[in-house]
Amino acid sequence: MAIDYNHLINQFGTKHIDDELLERFEHLTGRKPHLLLRRGTFFSHRELNLILDRYEQKKPFYLYTGRGPSSDSMHLGHMIPFVFTQWLQDVFDCPLVIQLTDDEKFLFKSNLKLEQCHGFAYQNAKDIIACGFKLDKTFIFSDLDFVGGPFYRNVVKISRLITARQSQQTFGFKLDDNVGKWHFVAIQATPSFSNSFPQIFGDKADIPCLIPCAIDQDPYFRLTRECAQRLKYKKPALIHAKFIPSLLGAQSKMSASAVESSIYMTDSAKEIKTKINKYAFSGGQTTVEEHRELGGDPDVDVSFQYLTFFLDDDAEVEQIRQDYRSGKLLTGELKQKTISLLQEFVKAFQDRRSKVDDALVKSFMDGTRQIDPTLRYGPGCTGEKPKAPKA
Amino acid sequence: MAIDYNHLINQFGTKHIDDELLERFEHLTGRKPHLLLRRGTFFSHRELNLILDRYEQKKPFYLYTGRGPSSDSMHLGHMIPFVFTQWLQDVFDCPLVIQLTDDEKFLFKSNLKLEQCHGFAYQNAKDIIACGFKLDKTFIFSDLDFVGGPFYRNVVKISRLITARQSQQTFGFKLDDNVGKWHFVAIQATPSFSNSFPQIFGDKADIPCLIPCAIDQDPYFRLTRECAQRLKYKKPALIHAKFIPSLLGAQSKMSASAVESSIYMTDSAKEIKTKINKYAFSGGQTTVEEHRELGGDPDVDVSFQYLTFFLDDDAEVEQIRQDYRSGKLLTGELKQKTISLLQEFVKAFQDRRSKVDDALVKSFMDGTRQIDPTLRYGPGCTGEKPKAPKA
Repeated sequence: MAIDYNHLINQFGTKHIDDELLERFEHLTGRKPHLLLRRGTFFSHRELNLILDRYEQKKPFYLYTGRGPSSDSMHLGHMIPFVFTQWLQDVFDCPLVIQLTDDEKFLFKSNLKLEQCHGFAYQNAKDIIACGFKLDKTFIFSDLDFVGGPFYRNVVKISRLITARQSQQTFGFKLDDNVGKWHFVAIQATPSFSNSFPQIFGDKADIPCLIPCAIDQDPYFRLTRECAQRLKYKKPALIHAKFIPSLLGAQSKMSASAVESSIYMTDSAKEIKTKINKYAFSGGQTTVEEHRELGGDPDVDVSFQYLTFFLDDDAEVEQIRQDYRSGKLLTGELKQKTISLLQEFVKAFQDRRSKVDDALVKSFMDGTRQIDPTLRYGPGCTGEKPKAPKA
Repeated sequence: MAIDYNHLINQFGTKHIDDELLERFEHLTGRKPHLLLRRGTFFSHRELNLILDRYEQKKPFYLYTGRGPSSDSMHLGHMIPFVFTQWLQDVFDCPLVIQLTDDEKFLFKSNLKLEQCHGFAYQNAKDIIACGFKLDKTFIFSDLDFVGGPFYRNVVKISRLITARQSQQTFGFKLDDNVGKWHFVAIQATPSFSNSFPQIFGDKADIPCLIPCAIDQDPYFRLTRECAQRLKYKKPALIHAKFIPSLLGAQSKMSASAVESSIYMTDSAKEIKTKINKYAFSGGQTTVEEHRELGGDPDVDVSFQYLTFFLDDDAEVEQIRQDYRSGKLLTGELKQKTISLLQEFVKAFQDRRSKVDDALVKSFMDGTRQIDPTLRYGPGCTGEKPKAPKA
């Protein structure tokens, strides 16, 4: 069943990212919006406008994103939000914190062992680092390593404000679910508040963040924003992505567990070719003759969807869309374009990944690492003296 | 209404501390059981016999106790379990961890601020240290400071094993209670497992503990023992105390909030005298004549109860009981004996307390402090190589 994203916007009470907002973005930053913005993969937001206000006023803010590490290797669907976040960091030149919720994976997957989850977090950190984040402004952490100290103080403050009923209603928990799940929202909420990271922002900071995430994470942050208000902290802003389809169809989310439905960042050029040719759901007709006559349907064609995530040239994408719809472009030809694009992306990623050594991971994940205050908020930023929160 | 402790033993499924167990205790340790054991304040246990087995076999174990810091100053009722625990440490010459649950107080008292609770923990630590614990074998910690690292790993492991239903049924939570409360059991359970404290026990240790606590804490540890089994950790043993009556009556628990019902460890000799004379519920008759004729009731007389907590000489206590019951001893005379006893105890405490400086607190609460392995388990202990838990 197709996901009705407009319905989600209405249900969650978020806002569409519209042309006006994108124009303002481009006007302020001098950068053409990322293809994932232009093409509506990041389609919804909460108060992105307030973050742009701060950018305009040269006031500090930071980015917060995360990942639940469920296996050793990430796949293309996992990479897309990080590719986008890396681009945002590049545009805003601002600090970024990345939470690896190895504790969450352990709580939600009864078959996993704790050290397994922690190992996944470490391996995923390498993949994330290979996206090109700025070391001097990025802190990546595993919850199992980092929860404690000022971070734990915020966990406790937040968990006092969220009732079991709210957690139950928001996430659909049953009484037979473990208390760790019911409580987990407080762990995911905490990085939204800058004083959880005194080593980066100082211990009196109250700097808001922008959270790029998949739309299914919004309920966590809706509760977080309610807590922010009651704690007199600045509310996090959000920018929401649609799900990345699996190879098997545009309507399904890519899953880490089904090998044939995903392209892993460790796949060889040959594996990519085989997977796309064999599994990528096609919007084409069954014979060349029919295809030439009736044309294909790019809206359900997975190769075409993937192409739109990676091919920056709008005119070229549009041409391919039209040619596929008209039948001028055959499925095999479309798939070949996508294969080349993905092979190139994965190869470049693998080259960068091979250079990520343990020492670099350690630096990114060092919870005691101070960040040079002049680097914290970007060169254009006034670095206004942060106000202590009142709570 | 009186608390029916036999009923609690049946309800909770614990065991009476009987004469046979006390005789074994005395035989093994060469020490006469503490008056709080002899007189049944510590009246119930779970597997204390297994701890005595380990003592006999010279195998290591440790003590774990705790406190929810609810105000800056502790009162007599709070001290009694610590006096007893100090005695146990002296007898067993074993390591001890003391958890100050400042996070719990914050979660359960919506009017308190976090830093207030943390401040209470620090002040309470001073009172606890003044009980005479051995620095080289005692670690006192505030949850707000110490939760994290290996401790947090166990929190997560435990919280995966406890369902919301168990937490609800065990503690009577409502859906409108905050998720921090529902989850708190995992925090209180964690110090029961020695690998939560690698700085003390090494990171592969699986050494059991004995937990002296008030009987109302048993439900936490019943769940903890279930978790222990599933995690293949050693189960904690328990030794349970009755409640200490408030001055206002032997049937009520002493409360930190009602000034007139408690003797604070900061009270002057004069305040102690006034409080006992004015508020201590009396089992005597209304006139001297009636008292001489009918006698008093030591079972409900609070002065007499307090006397039994502090006067070690069994024969003397028995004589006072008989004299009060017969009417030979007047209420005023009995109160005077208790007043002297308490004044002496509190004065000695205050003298020790005045010597507890910030540097000493810092040492006791230093979460990185290594403990000399030869000191860990007492001179008689074989220090068997701890086995790694299988979980």
